[in-house]
Amino acid sequence: MKREWDLLHTPGPTPIPPSVDRAMSQPIIGHRGQKCKDLLKELTPRLKPVFGSLENVQLLTGSGTSALEAAVVNTTAPGDKVIVVVAGAFGDRFAKLCQTYECNVHRIDVEWGKAVEVKEVEETLREHSDTKAVFVTHCETSTGVMHPVEDVAKSVHRLSQALVIVDGVSSIGGAEINMERSGIDLLVSGSQKAMMLPPGLAFAAIGERAWKVIEENDRPRFYLDLRTYDKKLTDGQTPFTPALSLMFGLEEVLNLIEEEGLEQVFERHQVMKQMTREACRALHLPLFVADEDASCTVTSIKPETFDPEKLRKIASEEFGLMLAGGQQHLKGQIFRIGHMGYTRPANVLQYISILEIVLKRLGHEFEAGAGTAAAQEAYLSVARELV
Amino acid sequence: MKREWDLLHTPGPTPIPPSVDRAMSQPIIGHRGQKCKDLLKELTPRLKPVFGSLENVQLLTGSGTSALEAAVVNTTAPGDKVIVVVAGAFGDRFAKLCQTYECNVHRIDVEWGKAVEVKEVEETLREHSDTKAVFVTHCETSTGVMHPVEDVAKSVHRLSQALVIVDGVSSIGGAEINMERSGIDLLVSGSQKAMMLPPGLAFAAIGERAWKVIEENDRPRFYLDLRTYDKKLTDGQTPFTPALSLMFGLEEVLNLIEEEGLEQVFERHQVMKQMTREACRALHLPLFVADEDASCTVTSIKPETFDPEKLRKIASEEFGLMLAGGQQHLKGQIFRIGHMGYTRPANVLQYISILEIVLKRLGHEFEAGAGTAAAQEAYLSVARELV
Repeated sequence: MKREWDLLHTPGPTPIPPSVDRAMSQPIIGHRGQKCKDLLKELTPRLKPVFGSLENVQLLTGSGTSALEAAVVNTTAPGDKVIVVVAGAFGDRFAKLCQTYECNVHRIDVEWGKAVEVKEVEETLREHSDTKAVFVTHCETSTGVMHPVEDVAKSVHRLSQALVIVDGVSSIGGAEINMERSGIDLLVSGSQKAMMLPPGLAFAAIGERAWKVIEENDRPRFYLDLRTYDKKLTDGQTPFTPALSLMFGLEEVLNLIEEEGLEQVFERHQVMKQMTREACRALHLPLFVADEDASCTVTSIKPETFDPEKLRKIASEEFGLMLAGGQQHLKGQIFRIGHMGYTRPANVLQYISILEIVLKRLGHEFEAGAGTAAAQEAYLSVARELV
Repeated sequence: MKREWDLLHTPGPTPIPPSVDRAMSQPIIGHRGQKCKDLLKELTPRLKPVFGSLENVQLLTGSGTSALEAAVVNTTAPGDKVIVVVAGAFGDRFAKLCQTYECNVHRIDVEWGKAVEVKEVEETLREHSDTKAVFVTHCETSTGVMHPVEDVAKSVHRLSQALVIVDGVSSIGGAEINMERSGIDLLVSGSQKAMMLPPGLAFAAIGERAWKVIEENDRPRFYLDLRTYDKKLTDGQTPFTPALSLMFGLEEVLNLIEEEGLEQVFERHQVMKQMTREACRALHLPLFVADEDASCTVTSIKPETFDPEKLRKIASEEFGLMLAGGQQHLKGQIFRIGHMGYTRPANVLQYISILEIVLKRLGHEFEAGAGTAAAQEAYLSVARELV
């Protein structure tokens, strides 16, 4: 099936709104000229509320992982003790980055599918009071868990001087987060998830305390040296040629977010989460994550009666509905639905209805239309509340 | 003036062909799905002739500098002796990268505006026979010099075991280069110059000898670890979410290059160089670089009778013609014209004709129409040859 017919519901990359696509098609401009300075000076402060940040948000040209690496190499030196919460592939990536860059890594390994408990972080921190930084994933894309990063941050700051560094790649722009309120020191993200852009742009929001550490840190770094990004930004520039077309698109993404209202954007993601989860329950599809730990941007299902890879294959071939499978030891065990960014309740109704057909083909038993009805009911109950 | 009217003739970023722009607007696909695997497996071998490479070309998501950094961190360890040819801002960047990553750097400082002489490299190499790598810039964008990198490579390999690592950011896709013929070991580039794409994608073509060094090198690296790119490529994947829209565009760029013919693409850049240089001579605009050292993608002019910044300002404000100024100590001393990528002799005729008006406004003396006539003559003399 041609990609024109695809219904992209992987947990990133995600579909691009047509107006963002048009914005990205604007003619290229010189990256040292006035037009680019004006654009960058407009964009970086407008990103602040999305990150709940008091400081400008820095733009890096790279995948989300480049921002994770920037967070590690700018704040740590070899031998520094760090705590990393690992409850999936992306927590694991943070830990691998810290190990690669020769930190003294203490992992808090949490069962995949569960969120970390704040008290676990507190206990580890008490054992390792000389910890320089605590790394946590906001939304663990590989499982669909949303870790309580704001509570973790508050707790860490009560107990220690450690920085709290958060991977917000698959949450920023979809889930509420507030660096100011919670004391998160460094929050990084990527363009290709709830930020409704193609991959290739990464973000770093850096609090005051983190800046102090970054300024004093003499670990060798160049392309991802956040000091040079900040220095250049005062002149409306980036140190290296930035992903200009994604910057053009970002301007329109911010227009869309501001028109809808940031609160409403977050609310929409909550509604899509509820609709998806209620539908799964009605369809006897076991949710991999408990309600209290579940992400509002991605939902994981662990079927017991059929192979999730078969479901993905039929959904893709018959309807162009692209879902994600499991990663690492969850390969072949779960499937994941992304519902973030340029996605509305109408899209949820569509993929639930498609899933019902696919489940019929797989011989999975459920009351006809039960998923759709449950999703509709979840939607209407919220809509009533909103009235 | 709105950017829709701009005539972008900086030496990168450069304009995007409409068909490439349309290709980039294709719907986003999952980066772990079959469609993306098919695309990557198609793209990387098709890049080989552009780099004159026997090996697949790796795609990185980042600015050109990310590829320079990848070249440094993958091939060197702290303390390694390296030679860096510095004859402008980008040679200087290679040297800074090597210094940042704690190499033992021997700079060959060449006067800005001149190309390195092969014998200088040979002499330095004789003095430092334990050199691990020689870093050279192909086109030094800041001056418009094209260094004889193929001759340097042959010479280095005659004298030593050192790797030859070349920055081809502003040459690849416009200037002929052949890794196989010359023995260049590692050749990196970016998307936003002669490759006719927006910034955000970077390339690394890696020869057999370089792979051996890279495999054995245990310097810590993660996002730019070329080993993981190669490993993932065997499965048609990149280690991290790639700049998908630029990959869609790259497919069409390769279509355009193949339709025109690679030889013809290189020839077109030579013609544009000759047209520009002959026009400058006729307009009494002093060329900053001698013919034998001059790049076919960018031409620098060092006016004696007027301020180049004034020329740039009028060209930009009155005609939307965007030219570049000088960098570092050449700021306010030179202006630079980019003629690469999606640029044809017709564009040269246009910017020369605009320059004539701007020069009139500046009170610069020249025979009316002399620049245009010289450019036309240069074009016709080649056209006659081609008949």
